[in-house]
Amino acid sequence: MLKRYDPYPSRTGDAEQIIPRTDPVIYGAGHSDRPQGLSREQLAHYEQKGFLTLPGLMDDRLDTIRAEADTLKTTMAGREELYTEPDSGELRTIFKPHAYSETIARIARDPRILEPVKQILGSDVYLTQSRINRKPAFKGRSFAWHSDFETWHVEDGMRHMRAVTAWIMLTDNHEYNGPLYVIPGSHKHYVSCAGTTEEKNYRKSLKKQVAGVPGKESLETLLKDHTIEGVYGKAGTLVLHECNILHGSPDNISGDPRALLMFVYNSVENELEQPFSGQAPRPHYLADREPKVL
Amino acid sequence: MLKRYDPYPSRTGDAEQIIPRTDPVIYGAGHSDRPQGLSREQLAHYEQKGFLTLPGLMDDRLDTIRAEADTLKTTMAGREELYTEPDSGELRTIFKPHAYSETIARIARDPRILEPVKQILGSDVYLTQSRINRKPAFKGRSFAWHSDFETWHVEDGMRHMRAVTAWIMLTDNHEYNGPLYVIPGSHKHYVSCAGTTEEKNYRKSLKKQVAGVPGKESLETLLKDHTIEGVYGKAGTLVLHECNILHGSPDNISGDPRALLMFVYNSVENELEQPFSGQAPRPHYLADREPKVL
Repeated sequence: MLKRYDPYPSRTGDAEQIIPRTDPVIYGAGHSDRPQGLSREQLAHYEQKGFLTLPGLMDDRLDTIRAEADTLKTTMAGREELYTEPDSGELRTIFKPHAYSETIARIARDPRILEPVKQILGSDVYLTQSRINRKPAFKGRSFAWHSDFETWHVEDGMRHMRAVTAWIMLTDNHEYNGPLYVIPGSHKHYVSCAGTTEEKNYRKSLKKQVAGVPGKESLETLLKDHTIEGVYGKAGTLVLHECNILHGSPDNISGDPRALLMFVYNSVENELEQPFSGQAPRPHYLADREPKVL
Repeated sequence: MLKRYDPYPSRTGDAEQIIPRTDPVIYGAGHSDRPQGLSREQLAHYEQKGFLTLPGLMDDRLDTIRAEADTLKTTMAGREELYTEPDSGELRTIFKPHAYSETIARIARDPRILEPVKQILGSDVYLTQSRINRKPAFKGRSFAWHSDFETWHVEDGMRHMRAVTAWIMLTDNHEYNGPLYVIPGSHKHYVSCAGTTEEKNYRKSLKKQVAGVPGKESLETLLKDHTIEGVYGKAGTLVLHECNILHGSPDNISGDPRALLMFVYNSVENELEQPFSGQAPRPHYLADREPKVL
């Protein structure tokens, strides 16, 4: 029997290495006839940097999303998709809110998000993941540098880099409240990580990612040609974020929590296969295997 | 026997509270006839904000200090004042470098530092502490909000807020490499902390400060009227930093280490007494009890 070809091997027990990206960043023709489409300049920025910030774009949805998050805290009580702080009951994460709220599902189809995403991915798309996240004030924990695609490839069987994360800032994101840092340009390199993948690794990695985290040498190599950039903006800002860009986050010692609503769009031509780790797939609320075209 | 009067009680087992500062920030007349003195505007800035940044002031000493730190790594090997990483041998901290290096001692007397410090403290001064610190790239740990004075008062017996920390940036300090955050204006409030002080607390607190750390409610109260500010600058920048200003530091997930040389100047009219905690004094390299007037 032929061995299954893996274009982006990682955690295979080999030494860490940096592999060039073979997938494009922008699929399809690039232009858009729709008023919500990105301009040529915006697309070029996304292609080069791996992310794009659209200030103010979702201002008119903020109150709705915040109210809906409050409602979901009640209606989803007891479900494993809802994670609140054991001591205070404060919201930490709602996984897959679009499945439990028609309001959130509608926002995921908002043409101001969907049109740019389709323009980038050059096809119809579906949601492979969504979540509402809240990093608390004073004690928000840091997150190590990683590429989402590496995890989605190894643990979810996403073959190609053909997915976009779109997230809406629900609070201001500034330099002090544990913001997202990205390494613009890093999305054109794939860090094939050392180690292997444990069974049910996600149970650990949702708290602290250890597997699939590039080592010091890879980061030093990439940081020779690239520099770190903080993704800042007011509440209501939309960020489009390439699936393979390296990102991390320092802890939040400020008095301001940081919250966001995040959608991960995957191309219908890039549906999830069996995980390349050989392990069982992750739960549906981390990687949906029943695509519903948007 | 009369009970000893404590103007700034903390860790006495009582509930946390915010006490107004009763000490001035600027002692003495304020003006200076020396060319190295601070201007009226600079003094006013320090008085209001609790810190002052002087870019480029120590550029000409950078190479000397860096070379001296390297030398001290060898000449101080085996001493408890030298702390290097167990695995890599990388420098973490040199305590009291001015006692082991005439070069460093000379820099502590540099009139560009000493004159502003005396102008603020309105008297002769001595070094109560000094150190060279290096926060490593990628894994530099965060530091909780705290006032140095609180520790110096409780654990070292410094009665009044009449000390200045002057530190020289030995690397660039930017928003990504775990910089110092301050809360300008917080130096005019004293957070009397809950809890008590363990014997030899410094052994723990040098790694992670737990005692003398204001709680969430105090911070939230102070952050209603004050905002966090990052202390950034190029290598060679001098920072003057009031002893009671609240400061903290997020972790460093960037590829750039952050290093500094720090001197703590105390007024000769504010010599250390017995610690207000009732515990034994901390070691000489954390709190010098044999003042040498500079």
